[in-house]
Amino acid sequence: MRRFTHEELVAQRLQPSALASTPRHPITVIVQDVRSRYNVGSIFRSADAFRIHELILCGYTPSPPSTEISKTALGSELTVPYRHVRDIHQALDDVENAGWKTFALELATPSTEISKLTPSHFPLALILGNELEGVSADVLERCKGSLHIPMHGVKHSLNVAVAAGIAMYEAVRQMP
Amino acid sequence: MRRFTHEELVAQRLQPSALASTPRHPITVIVQDVRSRYNVGSIFRSADAFRIHELILCGYTPSPPSTEISKTALGSELTVPYRHVRDIHQALDDVENAGWKTFALELATPSTEISKLTPSHFPLALILGNELEGVSADVLERCKGSLHIPMHGVKHSLNVAVAAGIAMYEAVRQMP
Repeated sequence: MRRFTHEELVAQRLQPSALASTPRHPITVIVQDVRSRYNVGSIFRSADAFRIHELILCGYTPSPPSTEISKTALGSELTVPYRHVRDIHQALDDVENAGWKTFALELATPSTEISKLTPSHFPLALILGNELEGVSADVLERCKGSLHIPMHGVKHSLNVAVAAGIAMYEAVRQMP
Repeated sequence: MRRFTHEELVAQRLQPSALASTPRHPITVIVQDVRSRYNVGSIFRSADAFRIHELILCGYTPSPPSTEISKTALGSELTVPYRHVRDIHQALDDVENAGWKTFALELATPSTEISKLTPSHFPLALILGNELEGVSADVLERCKGSLHIPMHGVKHSLNVAVAAGIAMYEAVRQMP
């Protein structure tokens, strides 16, 4: 067993020239008030890796250009379609009008386990909340539903960028 | 739909007093030369959330006590069994002798997709590599095999703590 060489990896991966014509997965990620630029950069990197449709940064979530975001995003801020929408309700209106199903990633009730998605969850607009506060009650109230990652420990929470990565990975694995 | 209250979450989660008597999942995570304390803290948090057996920090991977690790680990450095083993080959000898199956999380060949684990992968000792270099060739050579997260983007890599979280999540989901 051996690692792929850099040349093999480059040959395998999607070429930047082909990106515009390659269909994106039916997953939009909406970020509400995530404070850390490192978390935002890491979410950009996962958004590239899972080729999601769009990243919508809301509230005080920092946006590119930013040195700290670039440091963690490693160029993915140039390959992922994104926009900043100050008012998250405006972002939710936009995606709802375009036919997206809004689901918050939260520890809420009722909720569907992230490993049990069905075609009814797609196209999926996934809402991620602030590092400490999660998704706000007013946003949660208007979402179609809530998704959760099963927790087995004492602390009952994950880093928001890790949770986002797991959710994007699972949505790609299960998309119709 | 509403978020669980803090009291509901506390009631649902594993109580610290029950931790010692609760079986841990058959997953050990071995970390080779991860440089960032924030990544290590985030890996601790996932290790708690997925109640893995043990975290083994190797090479120059920073260990607790560390203010920056604690800032990201948020107390999980106190709930996850861990040790620091300078020489990763010593750590691999230890887990192999104890019957663990060693698999590197890498873009390597041949490799199994992380969503296609079988009982033969357990008990699973998962090896994570450095942020830039990945798992070293000498370690890769002695592993039983390699596991990978399917990549769909231009950049072909994830933050190491995000990749670790996805792998731990998938190992718990599929463990026998």
